[in-house]
This record gives sequence, structure tokens and C-alpha cells, in this order.
Amino acid sequence: MEVEAARLIGAGLAAIGAGAAAAGVGYIWGSFLQGALRNPEAANGEQARLYIGFAVTELLGLIAAVIGFILLFG
Amino acid sequence: MEVEAARLIGAGLAAIGAGAAAAGVGYIWGSFLQGALRNPEAANGEQARLYIGFAVTELLGLIAAVIGFILLFG
Amino acid sequence: MEVEAARLIGAGLAAIGAGAAAAGVGYIWGSFLQGALRNPEAANGEQARLYIGFAVTELLGLIAAVIGFILLFG
Amino acid sequence: MEVEAARLIGAGLAAIGAGAAAAGVGYIWGSFLQGALRNPEAANGEQARLYIGFAVTELLGLIAAVIGFILLFG
Amino acid sequence: MEVEAARLIGAGLAAIGAGAAAAGVGYIWGSFLQGALRNPEAANGEQARLYIGFAVTELLGLIAAVIGFILLFG
Repeated sequence: MEVEAARLIGAGLAAIGAGAAAAGVGYIWGSFLQGALRNPEAANGEQARLYIGFAVTELLGLIAAVIGFILLFG
Repeated sequence: MEVEAARLIGAGLAAIGAGAAAAGVGYIWGSFLQGALRNPEAANGEQARLYIGFAVTELLGLIAAVIGFILLFG
Repeated sequence: MEVEAARLIGAGLAAIGAGAAAAGVGYIWGSFLQGALRNPEAANGEQARLYIGFAVTELLGLIAAVIGFILLFG
Repeated sequence: MEVEAARLIGAGLAAIGAGAAAAGVGYIWGSFLQGALRNPEAANGEQARLYIGFAVTELLGLIAAVIGFILLFG
Repeated sequence: MEVEAARLIGAGLAAIGAGAAAAGVGYIWGSFLQGALRNPEAANGEQARLYIGFAVTELLGLIAAVIGFILLFG
């Protein structure tokens, strides 16, 4: 029973990690958009790197979410 | 009784989430105002997007607050 | 007695909130000074708004401190 | 014995405060260096204010560290 | 047994420290890349200082990770 309680608290803590990763993901998209609005004709050329950078950052938040789901249902 | 104690602590933790969302909301309005003061005649044209961005950010903080209120009174 | 312990821990947590508000207050003064050093003759004209923005931000930290003092002595 | 455990956890929490102060100290030095590299001949004239600002920021982190040491050895 | 539980929670807390250091490491590389894209011919000349700054920042995160591993296996 106490192990079950710790599992639920751990899932909530993992959700903090998932939310914290949003700061990094938002910074990537925000920086891209700031630059793209300053120099729109270069935006398409940088789109591939935007998605790579976005994916590796989002991944960290998703890993935190996966740990949370494993704690809930694992 | 111990469940009641955990409910109260959880409501306090949810309030941290509501307060943390204020950093993002403040960043949106601050960025808009910085840009609007630099180029005031474009400010009205971006107002719709300001309110959309503000609403989706404020929403996250309000969701945290709702979780806190459910914990208090639910 | 356990309630007394929780009161003391709560006062310490409230102090974190008071300290966290300093980030926002420092951002306001720092932004004002950066702008004032770039354009000093406009600084006096913005001083009223500086103090309004400073006051409403400082207020949040003081509220956190008041909660801490109520927890300690209330 | 439980008081002894709380003393150790409190010392660890105080160390978080000392580390968090490093963000502010690093911001001061980083901002000075950014400005000094842009306008090197003005750097010497601002050095006194750099050290004053650095000292009052470092002080907050050192106070947190002192609280941690008092908790450990006091 | 309770000491063993505290060891595991401590390892998790140490991992927060390792992750928090990533904010500083990312700031160094991001700032270098921003500057290098603005003035590419100066990038090679600053590479040595980039790696020194990166190493001393990464070190802090690795120390936190080492504390976590010692808690797990020490």
C-alpha cells in the first residue's frame, strides 16, 4: 500500500518533468519564429533543422511522460 | 484523515503550477508590448494573435488552479 | 505537535515564494535601467510606470512573506 | 534522532539556495562581459559597480551556504 | 530499510541537479552558435574558450550525476 502511494506521487513528479521540457520546446519554436519573421525567405531552408531540434527536445519531455505512465499503469 | 492532509498539500502544489504559468503569460504580454512600442502602428493588427496566445497560456495556469480547487472542495 | 512542525515547514516554503518574486522585481528594474541608459532623457517620464509595475510585483512577494509570518506567529 | 535527520535534509535544501544564487551571479558577470566586449574602453570605468553588484548577489548565496553549514555543524 | 528508501529518493533528487545543469550548458552552446552565425570567421578563434566554458559547466552536472550514482551503487 505504501509502495502504491509512492508510485502515484512519482507519477505526479514525472509530470513536472514533462511540463518543464515545454520551456525548452517553446524556446526553440519561439526563436525560430522570431528569426523567420525577421528574414522570412530563409525560413523554409531552416525548417529541417527546426524539426530536428524540436524532436530531440520534445523527446526529453515525452520520456518524462512515459516514466509517469509506467508509474501509473506499469 | 491522512487522505484529507494529502488533499490540502496537493492543493498547495497545484497553486505552484498556477503561479508558474504566470511566467509564460507575462512573457507573451511583455514581448507584445516591447514590439508594439517599437512599431506602434502594427500593434492593432497583431492584437488578435496576442489574445489567442494569451488565452492558450492562461488556460494552462487556470487548469492548474481548477485542479487545486477540486482538491480543496471536490 | 505535528501541526506545529507543518507550520514551520510551511513558513519555509512561503519564504521560497518571497524569494522567487525577486526574479520578477529584478527583471523590472533591470529592464528599466537598460532602457534608461540607452535613452536617459526619457527615463524621468517613465518613472511613474516603473514604480507602479514594481509595486504590483513586489506585492506578490510581500504576500508570500506575510503568509510566512502568519505561519510563524499567527 | 528525527531532529538530526531534519537537520541534514535542511542542509541539503540550503545548498539548493546557494546554487540558485549562482544564476544571478552568472547573469551579472555575463551581462558585464557582453557589454565590455561591445565597448571595451568603458569596461574599466564600470568595474567598481560590477564588483558591488556581484558582491551583493554573491552575498545571498553565501548566506544560504552559511545556513547550510550552521545546520550541519551548528 | 528506511535508509535504503532515502538513498533512492536522494538519487532521484541528484538527477534533477544533473538535468538543471543542462540549462547552463545549452545557454553556452546556444550563445556561441548565435554569435558564430552572426560573425562566422571569428568562430574558430573562440572555439577554445567555448570548450573551456562548456567543460566547467558540464562538470557541475556530471558531479550531480556522480552523486546520484554513488547513492545508487555506493
